[in-house]
Amino acid sequence: MALPELPFLPEFPSLVDHHCHGVARRDLDPEAFESYLTESDVPAAPGTTFFDSQLGFAVRRWCPEPLGLEPHCPPERYLARRRELGWEESTRRLLRASGIARFLVDTGPAADLTPRQKLETLAGAPARDIVRLEQLAERTADTSPSARDLLADLGDAIEAATTTAAGFKSVAAYRYGLDLPPGPPHPRDVHEAAERWLAERGSTDRARRVSDPVLLSHLMWSAAETGLPLQVHTGFGDPDLRLHRCDPLLLTDFLHEVRSTGCSVILLHGYPYHRSAAYLAHVFPHVYADVGLALGYTGARAVAVLAEMLELAPFGKVLFSTDAIGLPELYLVGARVFRDALARLLSGWVEQDAWSPEDAGRVARLICADTARRVYGLHAG
Amino acid sequence: MALPELPFLPEFPSLVDHHCHGVARRDLDPEAFESYLTESDVPAAPGTTFFDSQLGFAVRRWCPEPLGLEPHCPPERYLARRRELGWEESTRRLLRASGIARFLVDTGPAADLTPRQKLETLAGAPARDIVRLEQLAERTADTSPSARDLLADLGDAIEAATTTAAGFKSVAAYRYGLDLPPGPPHPRDVHEAAERWLAERGSTDRARRVSDPVLLSHLMWSAAETGLPLQVHTGFGDPDLRLHRCDPLLLTDFLHEVRSTGCSVILLHGYPYHRSAAYLAHVFPHVYADVGLALGYTGARAVAVLAEMLELAPFGKVLFSTDAIGLPELYLVGARVFRDALARLLSGWVEQDAWSPEDAGRVARLICADTARRVYGLHAG
Amino acid sequence: MALPELPFLPEFPSLVDHHCHGVARRDLDPEAFESYLTESDVPAAPGTTFFDSQLGFAVRRWCPEPLGLEPHCPPERYLARRRELGWEESTRRLLRASGIARFLVDTGPAADLTPRQKLETLAGAPARDIVRLEQLAERTADTSPSARDLLADLGDAIEAATTTAAGFKSVAAYRYGLDLPPGPPHPRDVHEAAERWLAERGSTDRARRVSDPVLLSHLMWSAAETGLPLQVHTGFGDPDLRLHRCDPLLLTDFLHEVRSTGCSVILLHGYPYHRSAAYLAHVFPHVYADVGLALGYTGARAVAVLAEMLELAPFGKVLFSTDAIGLPELYLVGARVFRDALARLLSGWVEQDAWSPEDAGRVARLICADTARRVYGLHAG
Repeated sequence: MALPELPFLPEFPSLVDHHCHGVARRDLDPEAFESYLTESDVPAAPGTTFFDSQLGFAVRRWCPEPLGLEPHCPPERYLARRRELGWEESTRRLLRASGIARFLVDTGPAADLTPRQKLETLAGAPARDIVRLEQLAERTADTSPSARDLLADLGDAIEAATTTAAGFKSVAAYRYGLDLPPGPPHPRDVHEAAERWLAERGSTDRARRVSDPVLLSHLMWSAAETGLPLQVHTGFGDPDLRLHRCDPLLLTDFLHEVRSTGCSVILLHGYPYHRSAAYLAHVFPHVYADVGLALGYTGARAVAVLAEMLELAPFGKVLFSTDAIGLPELYLVGARVFRDALARLLSGWVEQDAWSPEDAGRVARLICADTARRVYGLHAG
Repeated sequence: MALPELPFLPEFPSLVDHHCHGVARRDLDPEAFESYLTESDVPAAPGTTFFDSQLGFAVRRWCPEPLGLEPHCPPERYLARRRELGWEESTRRLLRASGIARFLVDTGPAADLTPRQKLETLAGAPARDIVRLEQLAERTADTSPSARDLLADLGDAIEAATTTAAGFKSVAAYRYGLDLPPGPPHPRDVHEAAERWLAERGSTDRARRVSDPVLLSHLMWSAAETGLPLQVHTGFGDPDLRLHRCDPLLLTDFLHEVRSTGCSVILLHGYPYHRSAAYLAHVFPHVYADVGLALGYTGARAVAVLAEMLELAPFGKVLFSTDAIGLPELYLVGARVFRDALARLLSGWVEQDAWSPEDAGRVARLICADTARRVYGLHAG
Repeated sequence: MALPELPFLPEFPSLVDHHCHGVARRDLDPEAFESYLTESDVPAAPGTTFFDSQLGFAVRRWCPEPLGLEPHCPPERYLARRRELGWEESTRRLLRASGIARFLVDTGPAADLTPRQKLETLAGAPARDIVRLEQLAERTADTSPSARDLLADLGDAIEAATTTAAGFKSVAAYRYGLDLPPGPPHPRDVHEAAERWLAERGSTDRARRVSDPVLLSHLMWSAAETGLPLQVHTGFGDPDLRLHRCDPLLLTDFLHEVRSTGCSVILLHGYPYHRSAAYLAHVFPHVYADVGLALGYTGARAVAVLAEMLELAPFGKVLFSTDAIGLPELYLVGARVFRDALARLLSGWVEQDAWSPEDAGRVARLICADTARRVYGLHAG
């Protein structure tokens, strides 16, 4: 059965992916490939494979065709063909089949991923950076002799980032949880926390990472005060996080207080608390939400997840993203699964006469691209 | 496509709306109208409108026809026609198209809303009062010189209310959260809390409101002891509340303890915790639930929300309400969206042979009206 | 409309029910029968009946036929026919209509229920025991003169159980909640807790039960260290539990720590937190999940609940169970509702071309039986 399109639009709007990462810049062996199909940080249970998941099935549904294979072909055949073409050609084909016309790229976990410029070349589409706050702090700490220097340099780095970046991103959910102190922390507390962090940093790899709630809050407030949009990871992710401490509702007091800065806050993913994210986008004018990561990961069920987001979220407050990382497959899957889900939902509501076709077309354009363009100040195209 | 009706019933049962408010008794400018389409307390984000939401689309789906317009007509045209007819004629038409045969009206936020009698005239249907406990306490405090007087007068006022009211309502969720002390508070603690409240009341508008957990609990217990049904707001509402502190499960210990009073407790709304409300209605004989507010607000998705409520909730424990306030549109939308959702669900289950047509008809009558009549002791008709 | 089957499999796989209880070994009067249709521990509210629920309707949909009656027949007629046949013949017919080829039986609440061997005879299918840890501790305490003896005897009993049992089960959710200390408790703390428990045991019936968090954690760790699979009740159940303290996410730290034992942990039920259970099965290789209890209880909605589980849960991590207790009807309903839900979901995804028919058939076999066989080390057949 063919993908339902939007009968009320001449063509599906091209997409702005407001949150993604780079792709691996090498050929991947099967284990490495599979490791990108899960949020787990260890191999699959004996007797199981991460290909046996909604995400794995969605990859096998959508990705073989651009590589010249039949949909649903076995993983081994798919991986063999991918190696045959090489990672660059495979990536080019997959990205260009996605219908994504513009990318905002998290600068975070970049060691073996393509830098932004390479992604642009492969995809044939422009990209802008989203600066990951915690990484910025960690890089700054690497060269700061004292807490005073660290905080001054960090302030400069955030300020400098505003000249090129489209926004900031916080992964406080992974580092501590979203039950952070809501208000802007007192400078004295920030200074003390920075001193503690610098003193402990040498001890372990984990200690290198910023995880103090006061520092995490300081980063979010520093970013908010620039006025650029602030993305916040909420909901599910790898086992580093404690999911029940990533409910976006834990940000409610922060959202109340940060409104005065004029900063837009975009709640990412949210699953399984995406209805709560939608509620926050409903009651706060400066709050937006997506279900990025959750769509590819839930595959054939993405339609249900997107539908839940579209209960309370005002239609001008919902964005599209893939949160793709490592595999170009995740861009294509994120985009196709989203298109399929959106088309099914809107067509169904039009068919029931709950929505008019004109409204459905307008909402599709908002979610696919127009709202992201407005929030991040992107030029059309 | 026409609204699915109930093929197994000669006609759709008329509705008892067991929880609503009055309508604005004046012509509304576009800004005022739009402010009733959201739980946000500030205008929509720049570049967006509250009309672009499931509720906004549902208003445009169901409300133009009674005013002589085409479904889905643009907001401007709808508002112009509404002004042309005037608020009274528009209200009369919208209320009478709703199929609601009886109203229970929260006496709470009444300043610029129609009193109960006016609603009855406009709708051509009888109404009874539901007394909002916090408002009763605040009015009583306005004229009480001491904590002792306040508590005595409050007891008298609650007692007096039972002669005319159909039930009580608590908005403790807004004022504090549902993580209240579960048992009946000790009179000494109530007295001290009343003294503190009276002493602080002069300071700010917010201090005028009762928000002390001991006092809120005292109100709920005082109401429960009258034996009248007690409605409790749970789940989503305006940004005054902290949604994660409005999960009805936080009432579990209270529900255990209050059972001995013989009082029925009706958990309102619940969204996105309506499955938890349904669970409580399942395990406690004295607990009931509705998804009032959530149906109009989720519009085309109300069918999914109602379905989730009908998983664990016994069918004799679910009630209908609109929670309409300010706009007569919200009565009509609440009623039509509910009818549509119920008809789709029950028809689908009958079609799959999961339910018999006779059972489906019986359950429809229970939810639409019969259970509310039984719980509130209303006469038929 | 006939039950949808799996067009991509020659026949529906026979089922392994990895979590159930015995059936009542006597004829039941209507009140006793109805008491098994609910997790409530008291009679239905006046004017209502537990038959008016998804579970009640599912019993009336699936169970009359094996007793020679029409589907959806009235409860009275059904109960009369059941009495006419007698409990043994009714049980035989209902169990054998379920398609369950193998049972794992919780040894817990057995006073008036069939022992495992009787269940095997009635069902004509083999069964193995799952040892309920709290009951083992309570029986051991009945004959232990001191904490030292209790702990030594308990260790021996757990060790002895491994020779015949297929796994262990914890109901810590009912006794305390899942917010237990995550790591293995210190022997000194366990000893002190055992002393306190023995000292208090005589006082009340409730005190006889093990409810100390340190002891509950000790039981779970003792079982885990045997390497047998450990079932943990999560999510909804009777009003003894506080549902918000049964979110499986509260086990996250325990799951992190227990991984080193090599024990598989199976999260039971989970509803309404089954998406969280699926997340844990996604990120932890040793974690599995079912939605056992929730399927029969949600009846016509089981398809939605199972679908939510199949969003994040890897397909090789999901198991089938009925959690049937007391009524043989609950086995049949659990099995038929599950089959119906699985068939609808998989057929729908194949029809949309989201899944291939081969994948759908393979996943059906995994969930119905193969994964349970692998995890519990059961021989095929």
